[in-house]
Amino acid sequence: MKIGFLGLGQMGAPIALNLIKAGHELMVWNRSSVKTGPLIAAGARAVKDPQDCANQDVVFSILSDDQAVENIVFGAKGLLKNPRPAIHITMSTISPGLVDCMTAAHRSHGGDLVSAPVFGRPAAAQAAKLFIIAAGAENSLDRCEALFSIIGQRTIRVGAAPQAANIVKLCGNFMIMSAVESLAEAMTLAKKSGVDKKTLLKALTSTIFTAPLYETYGQILIDQSFKPAGFSAPLGLKDMKLVSQVAEINQTPMPFLGILRDHILSVIAQEGEEVDWSAIAQVVEKAAAAY
Amino acid sequence: MKIGFLGLGQMGAPIALNLIKAGHELMVWNRSSVKTGPLIAAGARAVKDPQDCANQDVVFSILSDDQAVENIVFGAKGLLKNPRPAIHITMSTISPGLVDCMTAAHRSHGGDLVSAPVFGRPAAAQAAKLFIIAAGAENSLDRCEALFSIIGQRTIRVGAAPQAANIVKLCGNFMIMSAVESLAEAMTLAKKSGVDKKTLLKALTSTIFTAPLYETYGQILIDQSFKPAGFSAPLGLKDMKLVSQVAEINQTPMPFLGILRDHILSVIAQEGEEVDWSAIAQVVEKAAAAY
Amino acid sequence: MKIGFLGLGQMGAPIALNLIKAGHELMVWNRSSVKTGPLIAAGARAVKDPQDCANQDVVFSILSDDQAVENIVFGAKGLLKNPRPAIHITMSTISPGLVDCMTAAHRSHGGDLVSAPVFGRPAAAQAAKLFIIAAGAENSLDRCEALFSIIGQRTIRVGAAPQAANIVKLCGNFMIMSAVESLAEAMTLAKKSGVDKKTLLKALTSTIFTAPLYETYGQILIDQSFKPAGFSAPLGLKDMKLVSQVAEINQTPMPFLGILRDHILSVIAQEGEEVDWSAIAQVVEKAAAAY
Amino acid sequence: MKIGFLGLGQMGAPIALNLIKAGHELMVWNRSSVKTGPLIAAGARAVKDPQDCANQDVVFSILSDDQAVENIVFGAKGLLKNPRPAIHITMSTISPGLVDCMTAAHRSHGGDLVSAPVFGRPAAAQAAKLFIIAAGAENSLDRCEALFSIIGQRTIRVGAAPQAANIVKLCGNFMIMSAVESLAEAMTLAKKSGVDKKTLLKALTSTIFTAPLYETYGQILIDQSFKPAGFSAPLGLKDMKLVSQVAEINQTPMPFLGILRDHILSVIAQEGEEVDWSAIAQVVEKAAAAY
Repeated sequence: MKIGFLGLGQMGAPIALNLIKAGHELMVWNRSSVKTGPLIAAGARAVKDPQDCANQDVVFSILSDDQAVENIVFGAKGLLKNPRPAIHITMSTISPGLVDCMTAAHRSHGGDLVSAPVFGRPAAAQAAKLFIIAAGAENSLDRCEALFSIIGQRTIRVGAAPQAANIVKLCGNFMIMSAVESLAEAMTLAKKSGVDKKTLLKALTSTIFTAPLYETYGQILIDQSFKPAGFSAPLGLKDMKLVSQVAEINQTPMPFLGILRDHILSVIAQEGEEVDWSAIAQVVEKAAAAY
Repeated sequence: MKIGFLGLGQMGAPIALNLIKAGHELMVWNRSSVKTGPLIAAGARAVKDPQDCANQDVVFSILSDDQAVENIVFGAKGLLKNPRPAIHITMSTISPGLVDCMTAAHRSHGGDLVSAPVFGRPAAAQAAKLFIIAAGAENSLDRCEALFSIIGQRTIRVGAAPQAANIVKLCGNFMIMSAVESLAEAMTLAKKSGVDKKTLLKALTSTIFTAPLYETYGQILIDQSFKPAGFSAPLGLKDMKLVSQVAEINQTPMPFLGILRDHILSVIAQEGEEVDWSAIAQVVEKAAAAY
Repeated sequence: MKIGFLGLGQMGAPIALNLIKAGHELMVWNRSSVKTGPLIAAGARAVKDPQDCANQDVVFSILSDDQAVENIVFGAKGLLKNPRPAIHITMSTISPGLVDCMTAAHRSHGGDLVSAPVFGRPAAAQAAKLFIIAAGAENSLDRCEALFSIIGQRTIRVGAAPQAANIVKLCGNFMIMSAVESLAEAMTLAKKSGVDKKTLLKALTSTIFTAPLYETYGQILIDQSFKPAGFSAPLGLKDMKLVSQVAEINQTPMPFLGILRDHILSVIAQEGEEVDWSAIAQVVEKAAAAY
Repeated sequence: MKIGFLGLGQMGAPIALNLIKAGHELMVWNRSSVKTGPLIAAGARAVKDPQDCANQDVVFSILSDDQAVENIVFGAKGLLKNPRPAIHITMSTISPGLVDCMTAAHRSHGGDLVSAPVFGRPAAAQAAKLFIIAAGAENSLDRCEALFSIIGQRTIRVGAAPQAANIVKLCGNFMIMSAVESLAEAMTLAKKSGVDKKTLLKALTSTIFTAPLYETYGQILIDQSFKPAGFSAPLGLKDMKLVSQVAEINQTPMPFLGILRDHILSVIAQEGEEVDWSAIAQVVEKAAAAY
């Protein structure tokens, strides 16, 4: 399949590479062209602007925020400048409102939009072990299925409205961050009560908290390995802001969310932007004078 | 082994029964003697007072709160009225401070205390699938190991100080309740945003939230099956108060905890005491006018 | 003085009227022209577009949000289409960032901007009893002083950067809402403990909480007179969002703010938009099943 | 009048002195007898045990917590060992439950209890400027009125049930601490946004936050004069715990309270016990890396 791929960051680059390895022909673009090097080496063709990808069968995009996505779709050199009945697969964690807006725009040009954000950190992207949360028109989802199976270990369809995938993704990120916060509070309590973090973590993960995320983040919290960031605090803040926006539009009070936002603001204030979002654990420890 | 067993509630009764089935000789006691019936039918011998169990090799106790445990140990007819070098295995979710105090008292009489609270609801107790968090002197733990393997699927040792087990247990209950709250907030957001709870839960549990607790509580939240209570709101409140106590003694701020306490107070105010602790989800939904 | 006046809502209309009564010549504009009637009757001249006011000595504006203010300044028929070295006095509760932006724009055209948001509800505006928080270049503030004394009881200067006035105003609204929330929590506790709200309020306001705001909001809470709104919940929400924005830009965790946002979302979810912001007290009472 | 006076701390000593100056005959007791010196010098007679005061017309007590008060009433050498139809005026900030219990005990011996906690810091006690919140049987309150007018500037009666005074007092302390927290959050936001704390405080206290408490605590926050403590963090924590207890008994969620408890725990963890309760402001600033 002829595929356009926009965004070659920590997540995009390994996903694109997996598509190439599977035999697909890729046309790639990144805001800073420096990152296209390894993809060209692997056989991709770099293009100058997002619009140059518009005549592919499918265009993937995975970018950092709403503004970046707006730009590659609606911008002066965006996809809509050169529309064709292609499917745009948006994998970015962006606002459901923007997804709605993009869906309408693509359809008005005969194309379609599938929203397919993912769960998984860069290592999972490399290993093609991502979980893909997909939503959109059923026939469009069917057409993408084979591509998804190349880059992920599982695809879960969550509805016909593309924005549903983004709502699920945001809920998931909110819950991951809640899990990290609760683990951080428990570990701090344990430590100050004379039970070391490692003992606590083992007791929890070998009984009821068997999801790998507790293992992964628990180890990060024990090692305080917050730098370099796997998923940076500013990205975490961005996601919590998106959750806030959806909560506000839908008038949903979320008391845990307020705390998460505060802790991530605090960690950025104290540590700067180059730190993992799980460093909210440090905020918890400092408040207890346990750091 | 000759075993005393104090407390035949929703958890105690099935645990005691499993010990009998494994061939042990049980002497049982319960505050309200009505509950001893099924155990006697299974071969146990009922005694009038806790002190009557004191001459067994091992005495288990699993009671609802600090006061009940104080009574069976330090009370007028408690275990210490008739001390012998036995091991007292306390499985109750009680304050670490009381456990410390009991440890000293038992040792001063030549006995010992092992703390072994469990994770698991009544069905797990029946199926001998409990997780046992055990702490105490190593040789005492070794002596209890065989008994633990009868009633649980796994024993995790968390240290030589018996109270460590209670700290871990309290941390675990705090984290379970945090998980339920975060799921409730996410589900309410999803529902008000047009994504049904079932779809969200499936997407989460089939990807990153694979721990069975998310499945179990997620289903309860979808079905709103809060009555009858598997684990009642007042017991949940009691546990969160114990966590608060430990947090206060050790000067550990825990912002999630404040919210959990408020939500469980709210559910008791709104629904009365005969409701599952997971009904905090209802508080979240009512605040969003989504119930 | 020749004065332009943009925005004739609950606050703007009485302020404009006081300026007319003091002998000033007013050119007025409102988005919906219906509201200009009483002002024309009092001697003002209505204009079609904001730009028509640009050739006055001073232009006041008091509008509901950032977007409305952007429109009268930067819009197709905004003040900057017809610039003159006038002073624009912005009284709206808007983001400090927009004020900064407007300051630069006006100065680049030889004019100036003074920011002068007010404390006081509509009755205070009518009675010329507003408190004016003013910031800007000293000579500009001096030129405005006489006008401020017509419409308010006191002007407090808070610095040379116009946006400082908006920061102070937002801090003030945050603190008012915090005071209302704390009063609501205390009243609910008292009521459920057998002390009526009235007794509590009298005891507080006649001793340490002597600021009139406790009296005013206390009475509203006792009477539950949340409709019609003096200051509506959506405006309160808008202000708390502006505080959030400033807090985020400056990386300042504000745990009380998260609660206030949630409670105001909750009251809008439960009661709709036509309710006073102090109805957060109802959310508090409902959570305690005390409403 | 023959008066017994129990408790000569920072508050009790100046109150007792004012009673002596007004011509009353005092019999004083303090746990550590060292503090009786200045009172003896002023004409009081020291006694060995609380019970020695029981034959006075009126007995005041002002002690630090429930346990201390229980001891002077129900203890081995407490007031009830030597009961007479006297009035016990309890001025301590203690739990409403204990007040209820003491009321019943005194009445069963023909005496009565008036609860009269105060608002005011030590300087106000010296200047006889306290606010007295009084509750109890009307004729008992009438008998105490003259004494109250010696030590305070105003007495507010809040009902016939003595514990009502304690509920009002606890609500007041909760609201003071909420006011301090909201001021701290606002000041931190202002400071990080370029508006100094002093400017903010002046703008607030000269407009809508005219209650002296904002002035007093505002100045403490600006000067960061948290040591020595006027009212120590551990006493503040004790009071917030009493509020929590009442909230729990009456099933009242109080989200601000959770935050206040956490911040006072944090300040004790970070600074130790010898610090004013208003140092919660420091916790807020540290979380924003603004300290």
